Amino acid sequence: MALNNNRIAKDFGFGNVQNQRVRMLNKDGSFNVKRKGLPFKSSFNFYHFLISISWAKFVLLIVTWFTFVNLIFAFGYMWLGAENLQGVDMRSFSRQFLDSFFFSTQTFTTVGYGRISPIGMSANIISSLEALVGLMSFALITGLLYGRFSMPETRLLFSENAVVAPYKGSKAIMFRIANLQKSQLLDVEVSLSVSLFEEVKGERIRSFYTLNLERNTLLFFPTSWTVVHAFDEKSPFYEMTEKQFKASEVELLFVFKAYDDRYFQTIHSTYSYIVTEIEWGAKFTPILSIDDGWPVIDLASINAYLKVSI
Amino acid sequence: MALNNNRIAKDFGFGNVQNQRVRMLNKDGSFNVKRKGLPFKSSFNFYHFLISISWAKFVLLIVTWFTFVNLIFAFGYMWLGAENLQGVDMRSFSRQFLDSFFFSTQTFTTVGYGRISPIGMSANIISSLEALVGLMSFALITGLLYGRFSMPETRLLFSENAVVAPYKGSKAIMFRIANLQKSQLLDVEVSLSVSLFEEVKGERIRSFYTLNLERNTLLFFPTSWTVVHAFDEKSPFYEMTEKQFKASEVELLFVFKAYDDRYFQTIHSTYSYIVTEIEWGAKFTPILSIDDGWPVIDLASINAYLKVSI
Amino acid sequence: MALNNNRIAKDFGFGNVQNQRVRMLNKDGSFNVKRKGLPFKSSFNFYHFLISISWAKFVLLIVTWFTFVNLIFAFGYMWLGAENLQGVDMRSFSRQFLDSFFFSTQTFTTVGYGRISPIGMSANIISSLEALVGLMSFALITGLLYGRFSMPETRLLFSENAVVAPYKGSKAIMFRIANLQKSQLLDVEVSLSVSLFEEVKGERIRSFYTLNLERNTLLFFPTSWTVVHAFDEKSPFYEMTEKQFKASEVELLFVFKAYDDRYFQTIHSTYSYIVTEIEWGAKFTPILSIDDGWPVIDLASINAYLKVSI
Amino acid sequence: MALNNNRIAKDFGFGNVQNQRVRMLNKDGSFNVKRKGLPFKSSFNFYHFLISISWAKFVLLIVTWFTFVNLIFAFGYMWLGAENLQGVDMRSFSRQFLDSFFFSTQTFTTVGYGRISPIGMSANIISSLEALVGLMSFALITGLLYGRFSMPETRLLFSENAVVAPYKGSKAIMFRIANLQKSQLLDVEVSLSVSLFEEVKGERIRSFYTLNLERNTLLFFPTSWTVVHAFDEKSPFYEMTEKQFKASEVELLFVFKAYDDRYFQTIHSTYSYIVTEIEWGAKFTPILSIDDGWPVIDLASINAYLKVSI
Repeated sequence: MALNNNRIAKDFGFGNVQNQRVRMLNKDGSFNVKRKGLPFKSSFNFYHFLISISWAKFVLLIVTWFTFVNLIFAFGYMWLGAENLQGVDMRSFSRQFLDSFFFSTQTFTTVGYGRISPIGMSANIISSLEALVGLMSFALITGLLYGRFSMPETRLLFSENAVVAPYKGSKAIMFRIANLQKSQLLDVEVSLSVSLFEEVKGERIRSFYTLNLERNTLLFFPTSWTVVHAFDEKSPFYEMTEKQFKASEVELLFVFKAYDDRYFQTIHSTYSYIVTEIEWGAKFTPILSIDDGWPVIDLASINAYLKVSI
Repeated sequence: MALNNNRIAKDFGFGNVQNQRVRMLNKDGSFNVKRKGLPFKSSFNFYHFLISISWAKFVLLIVTWFTFVNLIFAFGYMWLGAENLQGVDMRSFSRQFLDSFFFSTQTFTTVGYGRISPIGMSANIISSLEALVGLMSFALITGLLYGRFSMPETRLLFSENAVVAPYKGSKAIMFRIANLQKSQLLDVEVSLSVSLFEEVKGERIRSFYTLNLERNTLLFFPTSWTVVHAFDEKSPFYEMTEKQFKASEVELLFVFKAYDDRYFQTIHSTYSYIVTEIEWGAKFTPILSIDDGWPVIDLASINAYLKVSI
Repeated sequence: MALNNNRIAKDFGFGNVQNQRVRMLNKDGSFNVKRKGLPFKSSFNFYHFLISISWAKFVLLIVTWFTFVNLIFAFGYMWLGAENLQGVDMRSFSRQFLDSFFFSTQTFTTVGYGRISPIGMSANIISSLEALVGLMSFALITGLLYGRFSMPETRLLFSENAVVAPYKGSKAIMFRIANLQKSQLLDVEVSLSVSLFEEVKGERIRSFYTLNLERNTLLFFPTSWTVVHAFDEKSPFYEMTEKQFKASEVELLFVFKAYDDRYFQTIHSTYSYIVTEIEWGAKFTPILSIDDGWPVIDLASINAYLKVSI
Repeated sequence: MALNNNRIAKDFGFGNVQNQRVRMLNKDGSFNVKRKGLPFKSSFNFYHFLISISWAKFVLLIVTWFTFVNLIFAFGYMWLGAENLQGVDMRSFSRQFLDSFFFSTQTFTTVGYGRISPIGMSANIISSLEALVGLMSFALITGLLYGRFSMPETRLLFSENAVVAPYKGSKAIMFRIANLQKSQLLDVEVSLSVSLFEEVKGERIRSFYTLNLERNTLLFFPTSWTVVHAFDEKSPFYEMTEKQFKASEVELLFVFKAYDDRYFQTIHSTYSYIVTEIEWGAKFTPILSIDDGWPVIDLASINAYLKVSI
C-alpha cells in the first residue's frame, strides 16, 4: 500500500517501535507506557492517589490513619505516665492504656468529654498538639472529600465494537457513543487517529494518521452519536481488504471533548478500538424510538449490530 | 418547499423521528429524551443529586441523616448496655434510651459535654467511631455547601415569546434576552438552530438547520440583546407563509455562551421556542431609557411587543 | 465627519441613547446601567454578596450571626426553663440568662466544657439542633473563606491617563498597563472599542467602533505594555482635531484577557477612559531600566508623560 | 546579519534594554524583572503566599499561629484573673498561667474537656470569642490545605540542554520534554521564541523572534517529545556560525500548553534555555524501547546526547 498524503507526523512519541504487544491506549484512557529512570516520588502525586483510589480504600485509609495516630499518642501518654491524665483507671497497665487510648481519640476528634483530662505541662502540650493534628487531619479530609465528589465525571457509553459497514457505495468504520448521564454536553468536538503497520519499500513500519470524519462537531449531544470514518480516497483504509486490514494491527484512537453544563468545564474522554474489536461487515441497528410521544434511547442496545456482506 | 444548502447534518441524534409530541429542549435547558436499558446507578450521580436538590430538601436530608445515624448509635449503646455510659439515668428504659441518644448526638457533633461519658472498651470504640463518622459527615456537608453555593448561576432573562417582525423589507424572527444579574458577561457567543418538518418528495421529514444571525458575538453584554434571524434567501423560512410556518412544527434551539467575570468561567445557557411561543406579526417595544442621566433597563417589559401586520 | 466602514454593530445594547451623563464603564469594570422592573431577589445572589463584601464587613457579619443565633437559643433555653440545664446558676434571672447564653455559645462552637449540660428531652433536642446549626454555619464559613481567598485577582495597573501622542507621522491614542503581581500572565489578548457621538445627516448619533491596535496579543506579559491605536485612515479619529475629539464624548472601552498561571484560569479585566482622562498632546516616558544587570520596572511612574505638540 | 521578515514586535515589554546580565526567564517559569515604586502590599497576595510556601514552612506557620493566639488569650484570662476559670490550679502564678494557657488551647481547638471552665460574663465572652477564632482559623486552614493540594501541578521534565543538531541537510535546535506524571496531557500546543542581539546599521540591538517549529501541536503526549526548530531561510539562525550564535546572547523562551485530564484544566508551563545551555554539535539518543512487549521510556536519559560535527 502506498503512503498517502494524509499521513501525519503526530506519532505521539511512539515512533516506529516494533514488537509492541500491548494496545497503546487502554479503555480507561491511560496509555500503555512504562516510565523508568527516575525515583518514584518524582512522578507520584499524593493528592491524586487519594482522589483516585476507591471509596472503600479511602475509608480504610482514614480508619487506619485514625487508629495509627491514636496509638502513637496513647503510647506518648503512657510514656509520660498515665497519672498525668486525671480520671484514668490506674488499676492495671491495660486499663491505663485503654483509658489513654480513648482519651487520645476524644482529643483527636475534639469531642473532649472531660472524664479524663490532662494534668501538668507535658500532658497538656501533647494533648494540645493532638487536637491540632486532629483538626488538620479533618481539614485535609474535608478537602479530599470535596475533591473526590466534585471531580468532573463524564460517563460516556461506547459500543463495545466498532464495525466496518457499507457506506455510500463504499465502506466506513463506525462506532456509537452515548451520554450516560442526564447532564447536558455542548460544543462537542471529536477526533479520530489510527496507528497501523504498513509495508514501505519492503520494510514494515508503523504509521499514524488522522482520520476524516463524516462529522466532527456537534452543538448538542442529547442522545447517541454514530462516529463515521469513510474509506474514501483520502483514507489509509482506501481499497483495503479484510485480510490487509486485520494484518495491519490497526488501533483507533478517539478523543472526545465537550462542555459539561454540570461542571461548567470542558471535559475530555479518550477511547480506543484495536483490530480484534472491529467487526468487519456489520451495521448498527437503531436505538432511538418514540414511546407515547417521547423519544426513548435504549442504551442496552448500543452495541447491537447485524452482520452484513460488504 | 425545496431543501436549501444551509441544511445541516447536525441532527443531534434525533434523526427523522416522527410523532414526537414533546418539545425537544425544555426551558430549563434539559432535553426531552428518556434513557432506558441500563441500571439506575450507571447514570446516577450522587454528588449532583445533592448539589441540585432544593435548599429545603437539602436541609431535610441533613436532619434526616443526623437523626438516623444517632438512632443507630443510640441502639448500639443500648445493645451494649447503658451501664457502659457513665452518667446515664438508669431509672427506666426510656430514660436510658434518651440519655444514650443524646450522648450519641453530643458525640456525633463532637460537643462532648461529658455529663455522660463512655466507660470500658466497647463503648469507647463505638463512641470513637461515631465521632469519626460525625466529623466525616460534616466534612462532606462542608464540601456540598461550598459546591452548592459556588456553582455558576447564569440567570438570563428571555422574552416569553419570539416574534416574527418586519425587518429590512422582509421578515425576521426575533427574541430578547437580558442579564438578570449584576455580573459582567464578556465574549458572548450565541447560535440558533431550528428543527422543523418539511415535505421532501411527498414525504414529511424532520430537518435541522443552523440559522444565520444578524449578529452572533458581543464583546460586552451590559443591557439587553435582541437576537435576530432574517428570512433571507438562505433562511429555511424564506417566503414561508404564516400557515406553512405553523404547520412545520418549528422549534428554535438557542445556545448562549459567555465568560462570567464573577465565576471566572465560561458559562453556557440553552433555551428553546416552539411554534406556539412564536408570535407571527409583532415587534418588541424599547426597554432602555435614560433617567437622570443614567441608562435604565426595564426588565419587566422584556416581552413587551406590539402586533403589526407583515 | 463621514461614517467609515469600521463602524460596528456591536452597540452593547446601549443603542442611540442620548443625554447619558454617566460613563458607560466604571473603573472597577462594572457598567452604569440600572435595572428595574423585577423583584430584588431575582437578581440578588447571596453567595456573591458574601464573597465580594470587604473583610471587615464579612467578619462583622459572622460575629453578628454568632451573637444573634446564640441569643435565639439562649431565649429558647430560658423559655424551657433554666432548670433543664444542669449547672446553671439559678440565683437570679440575669445569672440564668448569662449561663444559658454561654451554654449556647459552648454548644454552637461544639466546645462543650460540660460545666453546664442539658437535662431532659427538650433541652437535649434543642442543644443537639444548636450543635448541628453551629457545625453547618462553620461549614458554610469554611466554604466562604475558601471562595474569598481563592478568587482570581488580577491586579492590573493602568496609567491614570491615556494620551494622544505623535506616532509615525500621525497621531495615536496610547495608555500603559502593568501586571502588579508577580504572577505570570500568558497568552494575553486585548481589544479596544470606543463609543462617541457623530453628526450624521445633521443628527447627533452615538456610534460604536472597534479600534485597530498596533498589537493585540502578547505571549508573555512580564513588564509593562503600551497599548497603541493609530489615527490612520481606518480610525474613527482620522484627521480629527482636538476640538472635535473633545466634543465627541469619547469613551474608550478596553478588555484584557490572559491566562494567569497562579489560578490556572483565563482571567478578564475591563477598563475605560473617558474624554477628560485622555491627554491630547503628550507622550509617556520610559519606566524600564537596568539596575546592576537586572531589568527594573518603576510602577510609580506608569502615568509619567511629557506634554508635546502634535 | 540582516533582519528577516520573521522579526516580531512581541518584545514582551523588554524593548532594547542593554547590559542585562540575568536571564529573562528562570527555570521555574518566573521572569527576572524587579518591580519598584509601589508599596509592598499592592503586589502582595496573602493567599498565594500561603499556597506557595513549602509544607515545612506552612506547618511551622500554623504551629506559630496556634501558639501565638493561645498566648494572647492566656494573657487575657490572666488579666481578667484566673479565678474566673473554674478548676484552675491557683497555687502559684506559673500554675495559673499554665492552666490558663491550656484552657485556651482546649477552647481554641473546641476540645473543651471541662476540667477548667469559664465562670462569669467576661471569661465566658473571651472564651466564646476564642472558640470562634479557633473555628475560623481551622476553616481557613481547611481551605488552604485544599488549595495547596488541588493546585494543578504539571511536572514536565526538560532535557538540561538544548542541542544544535544536523537536520535535513542543515541544522536545527532541539530539546526534549517528557511528562513526569501518569496524567494524560491532551491538545498540546507549544511555542518557541528567542531573544538575541544583532548588529543593525552598526548598532547592537536586541531582537525578538518567534521560531517556526517542525510541529507545534500534539493530540496526545504519552511519552516524550523532541521540539525541533530548523535553521531554514526563515530562521534568524539561518547560516549562523557557532561563533556568531554564541556572541548573540541567545535565550530561547518556550511555552507549553495542554489540557490535563486530572485537573480538567488547561495548564501552561514555561521554560528557557540560555546560550550556555545550548550544545552546538550534538544529537539526542533514543529513550524509548520495548520491554516484554511494553513501550518503556527511560526518563533518566532525557538529556543523553552524542557530540556530532555539523
